[in-house]
Amino acid sequence: MRIALAQLNYTIGDFESNKAKILDCIRKARNQETELIVFAELAISGYPPRDFLEFDDFIDRCYKSLESIAIECRGISAIIGAPTLNPQKKGKSLFNSAVMLSDGKIQSVTNKSLLPNYDIFDEYRYFEPNQDFQVVKYKDIKIALTICEDIWNTGPEPLYVANPMEELASQNPDLLINIAASPFTWSQEEERNGVLRENARKYGIPVIYVNHVGAQTELLFDGNSKIINKDGDIILNLNAFAEDFAVFDLELYKPDKLAKSSRKDDRHKPAKAELIHDALVMGINNYFRKMGFSKAILGLSGGIDSAVTLALASKALGPSNVLAVLLPSAFSSGHSITDAKELAENLECPYYTINIEHGFQSLMDSLNPHFEGIPFNLAEENIQARVRAVLLMGLANKLGYILLNTSNKSEAAVGYGTLYGDMCGGISVLGDVYKTDVYELANYINRDSEIIPLNSITKPPSAELRPGQKDSDSLPDYPILDQILYKYIELREGPDKIINAGFDPSLVSRILKMVNMNEWKRHQTPPILRVSPKAFGSGRRMPIVAKYLS
Amino acid sequence: MRIALAQLNYTIGDFESNKAKILDCIRKARNQETELIVFAELAISGYPPRDFLEFDDFIDRCYKSLESIAIECRGISAIIGAPTLNPQKKGKSLFNSAVMLSDGKIQSVTNKSLLPNYDIFDEYRYFEPNQDFQVVKYKDIKIALTICEDIWNTGPEPLYVANPMEELASQNPDLLINIAASPFTWSQEEERNGVLRENARKYGIPVIYVNHVGAQTELLFDGNSKIINKDGDIILNLNAFAEDFAVFDLELYKPDKLAKSSRKDDRHKPAKAELIHDALVMGINNYFRKMGFSKAILGLSGGIDSAVTLALASKALGPSNVLAVLLPSAFSSGHSITDAKELAENLECPYYTINIEHGFQSLMDSLNPHFEGIPFNLAEENIQARVRAVLLMGLANKLGYILLNTSNKSEAAVGYGTLYGDMCGGISVLGDVYKTDVYELANYINRDSEIIPLNSITKPPSAELRPGQKDSDSLPDYPILDQILYKYIELREGPDKIINAGFDPSLVSRILKMVNMNEWKRHQTPPILRVSPKAFGSGRRMPIVAKYLS
Repeated sequence: MRIALAQLNYTIGDFESNKAKILDCIRKARNQETELIVFAELAISGYPPRDFLEFDDFIDRCYKSLESIAIECRGISAIIGAPTLNPQKKGKSLFNSAVMLSDGKIQSVTNKSLLPNYDIFDEYRYFEPNQDFQVVKYKDIKIALTICEDIWNTGPEPLYVANPMEELASQNPDLLINIAASPFTWSQEEERNGVLRENARKYGIPVIYVNHVGAQTELLFDGNSKIINKDGDIILNLNAFAEDFAVFDLELYKPDKLAKSSRKDDRHKPAKAELIHDALVMGINNYFRKMGFSKAILGLSGGIDSAVTLALASKALGPSNVLAVLLPSAFSSGHSITDAKELAENLECPYYTINIEHGFQSLMDSLNPHFEGIPFNLAEENIQARVRAVLLMGLANKLGYILLNTSNKSEAAVGYGTLYGDMCGGISVLGDVYKTDVYELANYINRDSEIIPLNSITKPPSAELRPGQKDSDSLPDYPILDQILYKYIELREGPDKIINAGFDPSLVSRILKMVNMNEWKRHQTPPILRVSPKAFGSGRRMPIVAKYLS
Repeated sequence: MRIALAQLNYTIGDFESNKAKILDCIRKARNQETELIVFAELAISGYPPRDFLEFDDFIDRCYKSLESIAIECRGISAIIGAPTLNPQKKGKSLFNSAVMLSDGKIQSVTNKSLLPNYDIFDEYRYFEPNQDFQVVKYKDIKIALTICEDIWNTGPEPLYVANPMEELASQNPDLLINIAASPFTWSQEEERNGVLRENARKYGIPVIYVNHVGAQTELLFDGNSKIINKDGDIILNLNAFAEDFAVFDLELYKPDKLAKSSRKDDRHKPAKAELIHDALVMGINNYFRKMGFSKAILGLSGGIDSAVTLALASKALGPSNVLAVLLPSAFSSGHSITDAKELAENLECPYYTINIEHGFQSLMDSLNPHFEGIPFNLAEENIQARVRAVLLMGLANKLGYILLNTSNKSEAAVGYGTLYGDMCGGISVLGDVYKTDVYELANYINRDSEIIPLNSITKPPSAELRPGQKDSDSLPDYPILDQILYKYIELREGPDKIINAGFDPSLVSRILKMVNMNEWKRHQTPPILRVSPKAFGSGRRMPIVAKYLS
């Protein structure tokens, strides 16, 4: 039996373009004498459709799309993810389904049992969990047809009481198909391969896994669809960060033959910085393309964050589409300007220089009568950052650019940034990358030649909002800060545990307090491209008004 | 049996202050010879604790608080909401529980079965649903002890497959106790009373209902704890929008006696505008108090939105704590300034006037060389709004104020506002109030005397960002706009259904497109005090990058 895997980049709610992509793959597969083609979870609508699912109109369009795809399924069958209506009156009105299309119509509907509802997932918000476990009979084989989370209930303390694979295994399936919407993090592919291999070995059957690829605002899907044989070996792995399509011969009862017809898993194993780099480039590119924009603008300070952001954007959109704006003030050091110019020139990005002093002084003229003689402090620092934002947004609005935010995760965590100032932007590129990892990214970008000036990498970080200011005046050194943040944010460790690991108690207390007291700021930041298992954004939901560790 | 209801305003994560309030009520109840006192759902931690629940440290503190409260429960028993650990290895690690404290220790734990996961609720994110239904025996009575949603699975198409009350009813309980965290909307109290009455009548037992009161960022809890007799009559109703405490005699088998010892439900039935008014005043007050601030600042334009916001803030914080700033430009009409001043004087709020022309022109000087001769357009309109924001935030930072956002729901819906301009603020007061309802609020505020100048109410709305500009240049009249928005946002009707109700097809299409295309703007707005069943914010989760009706 010949089976095709279609790994596509969908647009949420764009039924016409999603359908066109799907039909294109169905035709291609049929031309290659394929019997079955497999698409990802909720491919019809794109993932995640979020509250669009609450609109009857949206569900109607899903059905219409499904039906018009079914018409094309003659001489070939397709498994495709779609929301379907729950025929029962009790329970939520929808299922998250894998629909089998064949002979021009919907042949069967298999529903998802385990609905992830942690981190960025909200599936129990919309879907009723399936409780009826049946293998799908297709020609002479029995398929354990599952949807993403359904095969993840593993380990000694499983998250769900039910275990769909145990139920299906009792029906002796020949093959496990898992259609997924499994977003990227820098550690996800390793974990995912572990789960897929465990399932293959435990149940002694091959696994066909089809994932999404592409960015949906902050969520990045890396693809990496694959086939694993019953021994747990990856015998076919589709592209990371790009659409892909593959047909292979499945001779179920001669699994040793499988390897012959397929690409071996001999691909390069990328390091963390490379993974994050590629994910962010895709994230920027897809954000702009799907929003219908092509041009980005950003403030280039000469520091490392805006330098890395410019390099990534230049890669994602093309250098001529990224406008760097140097916005020096009285507190900008000479090297800031030269480092920034050098970078823009290395990348061949256009750049403007606008001194903010004139605007800043005018606003201060208006404010000084009301400032009651209080000396220069955080207020004036913020005003400088906000004047920059007004200038950048003015250029963006006038000339048709989208502003890129350049804040990193360490800053976002402790609130080291000005709301409505440097925290502005349509999308945050580095908001899920700790400062220490931003350096790794810079080194990766410079792997072949010095694109980012070394001086931007080696000089002490500074916001340059007052004379001689350095980040280390208000924050511990980033290697220490980032370790504490990682323990608190990613690992959800409390203060006692972090202190027991050897960190200074008063520092830990101060850092955790900063994180918790700045929820209000993070609430108003742009969506952050997610590359870690715990990013700021929809995957981390904290009270704003609260008094815990603060 | 004497039972006390304690309706309190908790602070999320502030274990010490929550415990102090709880102990105070326990002592007060004991002094009144009460046998049992009932607190709200998750009273220990405050509601909603959100992802704090993922921290072992936070759960430890919940237990410590519970244990130290238990020690005080001698001669009196308490029912109190808290997260508890799931002793099973399978399933999520926590339950949302009603804990019975007695004789100095935890006597029993009853877990929530139905976990709301729609709109603003995320309970399935944290909690395992209970599947074991047992009445709680207390002295000589059997209590159907339930938690909020547990008694809401009513109607012909219930949201959940399970029905805890049906299970508990089979054990012949004498009394239903429901501990709740049921947030305010302008229609909630009516719906809530319907559900409580239905339960009382259906199972033929009295209902004791204890809710939260107070604001938790955007979520407003109205209290309205109550007792309903087995015939469905409200025989005791605690305060709306304020803490309250009541003790009553329960003679279960003589329910006719119940009324004698209690306050009758003869309270004033407030209209929508009054409910929203009181809720917003509480919301502002609690946001500031719990964040540790006392002073608010806002831009006062002479229009109705900022006028109503100022009146509400003045009521919530005291007039001397609210600074109004008039920020006229070349496009401000004369009446804008006189209307604004008149209002500030009527309310006795301090006000400043800062003309934005100087700052605006300076920034334009910096930008004009790059504006490529493109005539005055939206870019310059936005710059004016952003200059105002920089001035307001400058004053806020320097003088210790928090900026109030004054955008209304109609504007927020269609994106009629400037991001980082008039969309700034720590909290949005009117972001869940449609423009037509803002007028109702203004009339309510003026019910006894003309506080808001009539001219602010009667003149055509305008952003005054270009000569002669009126909202109606770009938007349909608000009564039409608001009807379409209500159908789309609150009722989740699709375009066909709205058009079939008699609205112009091209207008409907245009409005829905505006709503969907402005998700990116709303993503960066402040938390919005929630007064409707479908507010922008955590209760409405839409894709940003998408192509549906857009």
